[in-house]
Amino acid sequence: MSDFKQEMISNAHTLEQALESYLPQKDEFPEKLHEAMRYSTLTGGKRLRPIMVMKTAEFFGMPFEKVLPTACGIEMIHTYSLIHDDLPVMDNDDFRRGKPTCHRVYGDALALLAGDALLTHAFTTIAKNSKIEGVATDAVIDVIEKVSLAAGGYGMIGGQTIDIISSGHEIDKNTLYYISNHKTGCLISISLWSGARLAGAPKEDLNKIKRFGEIIGLIFQIVDDILDIKGNEKLMGKPTGSDIKNKKNTFTHIVGYGDSIKLVNELSLQAKEIVRNYKHNNFFINLTDFFTERTY
Amino acid sequence: MSDFKQEMISNAHTLEQALESYLPQKDEFPEKLHEAMRYSTLTGGKRLRPIMVMKTAEFFGMPFEKVLPTACGIEMIHTYSLIHDDLPVMDNDDFRRGKPTCHRVYGDALALLAGDALLTHAFTTIAKNSKIEGVATDAVIDVIEKVSLAAGGYGMIGGQTIDIISSGHEIDKNTLYYISNHKTGCLISISLWSGARLAGAPKEDLNKIKRFGEIIGLIFQIVDDILDIKGNEKLMGKPTGSDIKNKKNTFTHIVGYGDSIKLVNELSLQAKEIVRNYKHNNFFINLTDFFTERTY
Repeated sequence: MSDFKQEMISNAHTLEQALESYLPQKDEFPEKLHEAMRYSTLTGGKRLRPIMVMKTAEFFGMPFEKVLPTACGIEMIHTYSLIHDDLPVMDNDDFRRGKPTCHRVYGDALALLAGDALLTHAFTTIAKNSKIEGVATDAVIDVIEKVSLAAGGYGMIGGQTIDIISSGHEIDKNTLYYISNHKTGCLISISLWSGARLAGAPKEDLNKIKRFGEIIGLIFQIVDDILDIKGNEKLMGKPTGSDIKNKKNTFTHIVGYGDSIKLVNELSLQAKEIVRNYKHNNFFINLTDFFTERTY
Repeated sequence: MSDFKQEMISNAHTLEQALESYLPQKDEFPEKLHEAMRYSTLTGGKRLRPIMVMKTAEFFGMPFEKVLPTACGIEMIHTYSLIHDDLPVMDNDDFRRGKPTCHRVYGDALALLAGDALLTHAFTTIAKNSKIEGVATDAVIDVIEKVSLAAGGYGMIGGQTIDIISSGHEIDKNTLYYISNHKTGCLISISLWSGARLAGAPKEDLNKIKRFGEIIGLIFQIVDDILDIKGNEKLMGKPTGSDIKNKKNTFTHIVGYGDSIKLVNELSLQAKEIVRNYKHNNFFINLTDFFTERTY
């Protein structure tokens, strides 16, 4: 295993300990709700978004411990979006991360509420636990503003809306890019931005990092579409071919399989170019390679 | 019409202008999502919670204009909760505020997403627009923490969870109080608290106002149950008798109709006692009477 992958696993472990402590505990009333929230949040996942918050904060000189509340908050938002996406009224998926989806275990009503509660708890987590020496209060407010903006109707939910509306219809490339940039890209990009903002990075760097995030977010989505065709179900923890089954508009379908791979490689070069002049840019370079070459 | 009711209507008008401007506009992409968000948020309602934010801030010496972002944010959270509650997977209600519910107009998937987007946009609205002279940043972070706590699994969603789980089963009085205090009381109470906190009220007053809010929140719910039996459908904008139809556990059912009315009057005295020693406490006294005597 590469050093980078080992580092990612170690970071994921640290993150999960924090996540476990910030989530409501199993024995807290109402237990069923909290159990459902924990079931979906603590069943694996690569923890890419929160690790990006942690590593970017470190890159700009802040110990990762200080941004754990924001990192965990963003992972809760990501998890809520998966729970709601999986509901019968949306994608109606039965498996996620190798386990039955939340609504398959707890029923549709409780899954809906567990998603709502995770989204809400994300903001409690950030606001309550970011009163830390060295973390500026105006940076925390900025993070809450930008994270909610990236997760909302102008961001992730906007992408999900167009994805749902256009499912089963042929769409053009612009719409395909809109969906990907919003549904996937916004939260990935704002994760990097949040780490940088909390660490006090100057505006120029914030813009740079955000742009870098948008590009690797796009890479992430295109590779996701490729893996839905050629991926290994066991590694991925969910059935492949579901995009075709659900008549989803994917890059492989609209742009073509070969051109999707070409596009990923072009975007990879673009992303690396943005961070090229940074010293000690290993994390960003390795992350780009990881996004580009991932097999699960 | 009493002066108080006229004042409430005038406040609701002011609030709605702010709400209209903070919501995504109809022509902003994706239009359908934003249309659904606006449809549910801008179709009337008494605007009790945001008015409570505004009036409590004024009571503690801060112009109401400075707390409009928080007032609007709380109204968005209230609206999202109604949209999700009305979904077929929850209460499956067809009418709300005299109009077809969100999912009846826009479909279940879009209603789910519109609810998610309103909840998310509430935090954008508060964080983005509270950078105002005289409003302390740590007060804004406190408000985001406490509002999300009141709206989440320990608060409103917790109450909704137990309400859904226990629907169709007989429950005891403790559970009935839990549901009411959480599903309804938490957001009402935190509305008053938020106005006071943003205005810089001392801790003792914050606790007092919160307790007052919990009691009138309970009054609100009991009167709601009473109105489901004796209320006027036209005034209320939704069919009465739906609690019985949905086998909901109500105060009128568990405590009895006559004792529910007695309880409301006792709680009303308790609430007034809390604010008795405040000078210029008219708003709180009138609000208590309004909650106690409301007919819609």
